[in-house]
Amino acid sequence: MTTAPLIILVRPQMGENIGAVARAMSNFGLEELRIVAPRDGWPNPKAVEMAAGAEYIITDAKIYDDFTSAMADINIAYATTARPRDMNKRVVSVEVAMQEIAPSLTLPQRERELKVALVFGSERAGLENDEITLCDNIITIPTSENNRSLNLAQSSVIIGYEWLKMSAELGVPSAEKNLQQSAPKSDMFGLFEQLEEYLDKSEYFRTENKKPIMWQNLKNMLLRGAWSEQEIRTFRGVLRSLWERSK
Amino acid sequence: MTTAPLIILVRPQMGENIGAVARAMSNFGLEELRIVAPRDGWPNPKAVEMAAGAEYIITDAKIYDDFTSAMADINIAYATTARPRDMNKRVVSVEVAMQEIAPSLTLPQRERELKVALVFGSERAGLENDEITLCDNIITIPTSENNRSLNLAQSSVIIGYEWLKMSAELGVPSAEKNLQQSAPKSDMFGLFEQLEEYLDKSEYFRTENKKPIMWQNLKNMLLRGAWSEQEIRTFRGVLRSLWERSK
Repeated sequence: MTTAPLIILVRPQMGENIGAVARAMSNFGLEELRIVAPRDGWPNPKAVEMAAGAEYIITDAKIYDDFTSAMADINIAYATTARPRDMNKRVVSVEVAMQEIAPSLTLPQRERELKVALVFGSERAGLENDEITLCDNIITIPTSENNRSLNLAQSSVIIGYEWLKMSAELGVPSAEKNLQQSAPKSDMFGLFEQLEEYLDKSEYFRTENKKPIMWQNLKNMLLRGAWSEQEIRTFRGVLRSLWERSK
Repeated sequence: MTTAPLIILVRPQMGENIGAVARAMSNFGLEELRIVAPRDGWPNPKAVEMAAGAEYIITDAKIYDDFTSAMADINIAYATTARPRDMNKRVVSVEVAMQEIAPSLTLPQRERELKVALVFGSERAGLENDEITLCDNIITIPTSENNRSLNLAQSSVIIGYEWLKMSAELGVPSAEKNLQQSAPKSDMFGLFEQLEEYLDKSEYFRTENKKPIMWQNLKNMLLRGAWSEQEIRTFRGVLRSLWERSK
């Protein structure tokens, strides 16, 4: 049973930083770490060295080749990053994110296992727009105008700290129902594949160079509904219904 | 005029850690650093190296030989440490500490300059009982039972983060923007009309008596994204594109 959000590190560079994240996780009650394409390979002795009491998190970390595989069974994902201009994605504070997440994961009456991911990009470049698009929300950490740049170790400490505070308090009502019902991401990925095929065939994206941004916007708006598995099936049925008539 | 608490580092060992504290300070709007008896002397190039945008805090840091001199002009001090057994000292959470400090420093009507210090001990041994005794309160940071040990960089990030939140009363940024952008309902009604027409014509609702609930569910899930006017236009274009192909 999942009782805490997972951490997904996408293309982390320094082993030391992976270790620092693991340490912060164990300091604040986060347990499961997924790593996508770590730059220096895996296992990484420097990660273990920096983990300081969190070696078990490093040992148990799961490694993925690409982001979509790491996200396949995730129901709700929060990207920790600045919102790119022109991307219409819900932005929440760390506090609000944890207020949403904590009750959904800890309430005993929920019907099935729910997986929530907190997603961090690489030290240098953060997350790519494609990756942010696949997340449901963006978490923003307030910083002073003097120095807006937080590193991975710092961000993970703040995220973990707010998680521990919130999960310890609980009783917070929030958006619980939306989080509980949202389908695993792989369901949305399947929907995207189907829709993209239809749109390509019907020449919806008039020019090839406009497609990336148009397609990104479309995925963003479809993800925002946090649809359940049943709802995704329904929508795919709608698309199919419109499409089939063309045969 | 002091408008933020000072940080006092007592006998810090590694220059890297001093730099990390300075970085966290500048990230979260803390400006004045005092250092008591740094182990490796002063200035320390490694502190500058780790400061990453907070070099000015390192450069302006004041160095003291002993703790009492560093504390001389301080009005209120909070020790960041575990409470020693048999010491009867008030213990507060980071949050509560900042709730106490922020109004005192920012209210314009206070009569004289007030100096508040947040005091950190050395990496290895923390603060001595004598030093804790000179502080007014102890700040405690919640941690998981799995790993209670926080390092200087981590603690300073949390302290700074709570300071910034409290001083800016940052509460909830977020959802507001989504609400503002959401289109007038008539736009969604137009979309519904168009979609219903297509679905009727393609015989999506197999039986007339199932239609009401199916259609209601579909509208619910589409509304949940709180789409903007532009997004609704986009989606209508998608529907049209799929549909037109059937002509």
